[in-house]
Amino acid sequence: MTASPVVPSRGILTPLGSQNARIAGGFWAELQQLNATAIIGHCYSWMERLGWIGNFDAAVEGRLPADRTGREFSDSDVYKLVEAMAWEIGRTGDPELARSYESLVARIVAAQEPDGYLNTRFGRPGQGSRYSDLEWGHELYCYGHLFQAAVARSRTHGEDDLVRAAVRAADHVCEIFGAGGIESVCGHPEIESALVEFARETGDPRYLEQARLFIERRGTGTLADIEFGREYFQDDIPIREAEVLRGHAVRAMYLTAGAIDTAIETGDDPLLHAVEHQLERTRARRTYLTGGTGAHHEGESFGGDWELPSERAYSETCAGVGSIMAYQRMLLATGEAHYADMIERLLYNIVATSPAADGHSFFYTNTLHRRSPGTVPAADEVSPRAAASMRAPWFAVSCCPPNVARTLASLDAYLAAIDGDTVYLQQYASSRITAAPEGGAVTLEVETDYPRGGRITVRVVEAPEVGARIALRVPEWADEGARLVVNGVSLDAQPGWVRPAAPVRVGDSVVLELPVHPRLVHPDPRIDALRGQVAVERGPLVMCLERAADDQLSVEEFRVAGEPRDSDDGVVIPLVPVSFDEHTWPFVGTPADRASGAAIDVALIPYYQWGNAGPSTMRVWMPVLDHDRAAEPYQIPDSVS
Amino acid sequence: MTASPVVPSRGILTPLGSQNARIAGGFWAELQQLNATAIIGHCYSWMERLGWIGNFDAAVEGRLPADRTGREFSDSDVYKLVEAMAWEIGRTGDPELARSYESLVARIVAAQEPDGYLNTRFGRPGQGSRYSDLEWGHELYCYGHLFQAAVARSRTHGEDDLVRAAVRAADHVCEIFGAGGIESVCGHPEIESALVEFARETGDPRYLEQARLFIERRGTGTLADIEFGREYFQDDIPIREAEVLRGHAVRAMYLTAGAIDTAIETGDDPLLHAVEHQLERTRARRTYLTGGTGAHHEGESFGGDWELPSERAYSETCAGVGSIMAYQRMLLATGEAHYADMIERLLYNIVATSPAADGHSFFYTNTLHRRSPGTVPAADEVSPRAAASMRAPWFAVSCCPPNVARTLASLDAYLAAIDGDTVYLQQYASSRITAAPEGGAVTLEVETDYPRGGRITVRVVEAPEVGARIALRVPEWADEGARLVVNGVSLDAQPGWVRPAAPVRVGDSVVLELPVHPRLVHPDPRIDALRGQVAVERGPLVMCLERAADDQLSVEEFRVAGEPRDSDDGVVIPLVPVSFDEHTWPFVGTPADRASGAAIDVALIPYYQWGNAGPSTMRVWMPVLDHDRAAEPYQIPDSVS
Repeated sequence: MTASPVVPSRGILTPLGSQNARIAGGFWAELQQLNATAIIGHCYSWMERLGWIGNFDAAVEGRLPADRTGREFSDSDVYKLVEAMAWEIGRTGDPELARSYESLVARIVAAQEPDGYLNTRFGRPGQGSRYSDLEWGHELYCYGHLFQAAVARSRTHGEDDLVRAAVRAADHVCEIFGAGGIESVCGHPEIESALVEFARETGDPRYLEQARLFIERRGTGTLADIEFGREYFQDDIPIREAEVLRGHAVRAMYLTAGAIDTAIETGDDPLLHAVEHQLERTRARRTYLTGGTGAHHEGESFGGDWELPSERAYSETCAGVGSIMAYQRMLLATGEAHYADMIERLLYNIVATSPAADGHSFFYTNTLHRRSPGTVPAADEVSPRAAASMRAPWFAVSCCPPNVARTLASLDAYLAAIDGDTVYLQQYASSRITAAPEGGAVTLEVETDYPRGGRITVRVVEAPEVGARIALRVPEWADEGARLVVNGVSLDAQPGWVRPAAPVRVGDSVVLELPVHPRLVHPDPRIDALRGQVAVERGPLVMCLERAADDQLSVEEFRVAGEPRDSDDGVVIPLVPVSFDEHTWPFVGTPADRASGAAIDVALIPYYQWGNAGPSTMRVWMPVLDHDRAAEPYQIPDSVS
Repeated sequence: MTASPVVPSRGILTPLGSQNARIAGGFWAELQQLNATAIIGHCYSWMERLGWIGNFDAAVEGRLPADRTGREFSDSDVYKLVEAMAWEIGRTGDPELARSYESLVARIVAAQEPDGYLNTRFGRPGQGSRYSDLEWGHELYCYGHLFQAAVARSRTHGEDDLVRAAVRAADHVCEIFGAGGIESVCGHPEIESALVEFARETGDPRYLEQARLFIERRGTGTLADIEFGREYFQDDIPIREAEVLRGHAVRAMYLTAGAIDTAIETGDDPLLHAVEHQLERTRARRTYLTGGTGAHHEGESFGGDWELPSERAYSETCAGVGSIMAYQRMLLATGEAHYADMIERLLYNIVATSPAADGHSFFYTNTLHRRSPGTVPAADEVSPRAAASMRAPWFAVSCCPPNVARTLASLDAYLAAIDGDTVYLQQYASSRITAAPEGGAVTLEVETDYPRGGRITVRVVEAPEVGARIALRVPEWADEGARLVVNGVSLDAQPGWVRPAAPVRVGDSVVLELPVHPRLVHPDPRIDALRGQVAVERGPLVMCLERAADDQLSVEEFRVAGEPRDSDDGVVIPLVPVSFDEHTWPFVGTPADRASGAAIDVALIPYYQWGNAGPSTMRVWMPVLDHDRAAEPYQIPDSVS
C-alpha cells in the first residue's frame, strides 16, 4: 500500500509513497498548503454550485436527463476532486475533509446501476444509449478517473464504498469491452493507465488484460473519422508503430502513460521501447521550454516538429499533468535521471503556474507570450476554456483545476525511490525520507530553499551499520558548476545521478550544490517561432518579462543586450528600449528595430508568477537586439560585462 | 447595366464592366480559360454528384429533410456557381453554358415558397424552423449569394426567373427582418453587400434600408455568445466603433464590403471612415505577404496584431475573395491606388494560387510554409476543409472553389474605371478598354506580358479630338525604377497614379515600365514568426522555395546568403545548405546553423505555382544565414555580388 499514484511491479526504480517521503517545507509545501486551504474547496464549491455533483443526485432521483448540467465528461471532474481529497486525507488526516469525502462518495455510488454502469450522461430514456458515442461520449474516460480515485483511496486508507464501486465498474467494463465484447476504445484515453493501476492495487489480472486490449486496439481505426482526423484521439496509427506523439496533447500523454504501464506489467519491451522513442522525439521537437505541449488551439493538439509558437502556445495544464504521468512511469521503468528533469520542469513551470497565488483561479492554457493585456474574468464567471486570456475561476470544460489539485495532493510521491541498496532523491524539497532498501532502513532529512538557492543538504538520520547508498539527481541544466560535498569534501558533479563514493552513515551530511544563477537559453535553429530570441532560466525556473497593462512600455518594446544576473531585485537582464517605424504595409525593404535609449537593467520574474497582478503583457522568449541593423546606437551599462 | 459585381452610385471612380473592359490575353486570360473549360464544370459536377443541387429537387418533391445532403450552407455554393455561370455567359455567350444555367435556375426557383422563402435546410417538418438558428443557420447568408447571382444575371442579361426569385426573396427578407421584424442579423455576414448591390440594380430602396439595418444591428450582441466569443461573427462591437478587423476573416471581409456599400449609398461618411481605418490597420498588422488574412485555424480567424505565423497561416481562399470585394469598394470610393495594389496582390497570390494548374483541385487554406510533404487527396475524395495539406478536389465545406469561379468569371471588372475626363487603368493585362469619360469616347488597347515582363503598352485607338486623359497605376513595390514613356519621351514614375502630362490622341503610345526584377522583402520587426527571415517578390508575385518530397534537402535545410536575381532558369537566390546538431532537448546553450557547403544558386517559383507537382516542402519566408554563429565558413559564388 505505497501511497503513490503509480506503483509498478517491475522496473528499475521502486517509488516511495507519501508515508515514506514527506515534503516538510518550502516551495512545494506552500503549494500543498494552498491546495489544502483553497484549491480543493474551490473545486468542490464550483462543482456543487454548477450541479456537476448534483447530477449524481439527479440520477438517483430519476431527474435525468432534464436536470443534468455540465459537459458530457463532468463526472470525471468530480472523480478527480475525489482523488485529490483522498490523497489529501492520506497526507494530513484532516477529519473535516474526511467527512466531506464520505458524503461526496455516498452521493456518487448511489448513482451506480446494478450491473456496475456509472455515468450521468448516458443510458437513460431521453439520453444517448450506453457506449453509443465512443468518439465524444467520454464514458470510459470517466471510469478511468473513477479508478484513479479508488486507487488513491485504497492506497491511503483501504477499501471503502468508492473502491467497491470502482471494482463493480471495472468488472462491468471488462465484460462489455473484453474479448468478444465491443471491439473499440474511448475517444479520450485515460482508462488504460487507470485499469493497470487498479489491477496493481486490486490484484485482479482482468483489469490489466482489458488495458492491454485497449492499447492494442488503439490506432486501428475503430473510432469514426472526424474533421481533425483520427490522430486527434491517436486512432490513426497503432501505438507500437508511431514515431512521435500527435493529435490532442492530453489524450496522447494519458495514452502514453497507459502504454508504459501496460508494457511494464505484461513484460512487453517492444511496446516500451516504441513509446520511449516517441517520448524522446516529442521532447526534442514538440515541447515548449516550460515542458508544456500542444502548439495548436485547434484540436488542442501537438503541432509538427519544431512548430512551437509562443503566442499561440496551447500548452494545456492537463497536458502538463499527463506529461508528468508519462515521464514518472518512464523514470521508474528506466531509472534515467533526465525523466526526473522533465517532471521538475513541468512541476515548476506548468503545475505551479496554473493556480493563482490565492488558489481561486487557474490557467487552462499556458501561453509563453501575451502581446496585449487580457481581461481578468469575474470571480463568479464560467469562462470558455482557451479564450480565457488570464487565470479564470472556472471553465465550461474544467478539467485543469481538479487535475492540479490531485497532482499537488500526491506530490510527495515524486520525491524519492529505491533501487536495490540505493535511495534515489529525484526531486528536491525540505523533506524527510524513510526507505527500506536492501541492506536496511534509511532515514534522510533534506533541507533546502531550492529553487531560490541551489544548496540541498541531506542529513543521514538512520542507516544500517555498514552505511547506506544514496544517489542525487543533477539536472541537465546544471552542466557547469554542480558540486557534491560529502562531509566537507567537494567533488565536481555531472548531470545524471551523482553518488557519494562511499556508503553514508548516521550523522553524515551530503550537500549538493546546484548552480541556480540565471542563464541564457537559445532555441534550436529549426524553431522558426523563436529565431533571434533568447530566454532566461534560473535553476528549474523559466523566467519571463512581464509589464503591467499601464506600464509605459510593453514587453514588445525591449531587446536583449546582455547576460542576465542575480541582483538585489532578483533576476535582471540588460534590455534596450526600441521603437518602430509605422508603415501601412508591414513588408518593406529595410525595417529595423530603432533603439530609443541605452540598455537598462530590467527585472524578470519566474514564469509561474506571471499574471497575478492584473492584466499585463508577458514574454518568455525575448528578441535579441540586432546590432547590425538597429537604427540608433545603444550602450551596455558598466555593470554588465 | 455595367457588367461588374459592384456599381456604386457615388464615389471617386466609376467602374467599367466587362462590356467595356475585356481581358484579351496573358496570365488572366489563361485563368479565365481554365475557369471556362474546367473549374465551373468541376464545381457543377461535384455539387450535382453530392446532391447539393438535388436538395432543391428534394424540396420540390417533399423529400426533405430525409434526402438532404451537405452542410447547412450548401445552397450558397450552388448560388455562387450560378453567379459564376452568369458572368461567364455574359463574357462569352457560350450557348451550352446558357442551357446549363437555365436548367439549374429552373430547379432552384421551383423550390421557392409562395412567400419568397427559399432554403433547403429550414422550415419543413423535421427541420429547424425558419430563422431559429441565426448564429449558425446561414439562411440570410444564402440569400446574399442568391442576390449576387441575380445581380450578375441582371447586369449581363436582364431579368429572368432567377432575378425574379431573388426579388421575391429580398422582399421576404425585408418583411421579416425590417423595422418591427426580427431585430437581429445573420451569423455569417454576406447579405449586407448583396442587398445594397441588389438595391442598386433593381432600384428598390427597401433593400438598401434593410442592409443599413443589418449594418447598424451588427455588434450589438443580438447573436448568442459562443465559445469563440461574439467577435467570431463581428457581433462584439458596433462596426463604427471597431478599430480593426477581427474574428472569422471571411465574415469580417464580407461585412466590411457591406459596410462600405451601405456608407456609400446612404452618404454615411463616418461609417466609411471607420471602416477605412479598420482596413488600414488590418492591412498594416494582420495581413500576410500574399494579401491573405486569418492567422488562426481555430475559428478561421484573424490573430492579434503582428501575429502572422507562416506554418499555421489559415489565409482562406474565401477571405482573399472577400478582401478583394472590400478593397475594390474602397478603391472606387476613394480613388486611392494602394487599394488596387492590394487587389493585385490578392489576385496573383491567393485567387491564382487556389486552383491547381488543371483546375480540378483547390487550396482552401493558403499556408506560407509547409515543413513536411503532404498527401495528395484522391480525385474522388471529399476533404475536410483545413486538414487538407494539398489542393483537394472538393471539401465538406466547399465555399472556396465556386468563390474562385465567380471571381475569375468577373475579372474584367477590375481592369479600369473612369473619373471625370480620365480613364484609370487599375490592373494590367492585354486588354481592350472602351470608355466614355467626360469629353468623349476613348478606346485603348493594352499589350503586355505582365507580370513576366514589366512593360505595359497602351495604344490610343479612339479619343476625342482634343485628346483623352489616362492614368496608370504604379504599384507601391515599384518605388525605384518605374518609368512612363509617352511617344518615346521617358519620365520617372512614382507609386500611385501616373498621368501623361498632355492629353493622349489617336495613334499615341504610352508605355509604363515597371521594375519586375526579383527583390528581397523584410518583415516588420514586430512579427515574431518572421524574425531573421526574408522573402522574395518579383513584380506582383510572391516567390517561394519549393522542394519535392524526394529531394535530398527540404526547404528547412537552406539559409539565404545573398540577393535574388533573374537568370535563364527564372529567379534564383544564393542559398547555403545547413545541417543541425541533434539534441534530446531543443533549448540548449549555443545552438547554431551548421553550414554544410558553399552557397549555391537555387531557383524560386511563384507562390501560385507551388504544390502542382506532388507532395513537397515549401517556404515563402527563408531564414538568413547567421554569419556570426554559423559553425562552418561559407562562400558566396562569384556570380553573386
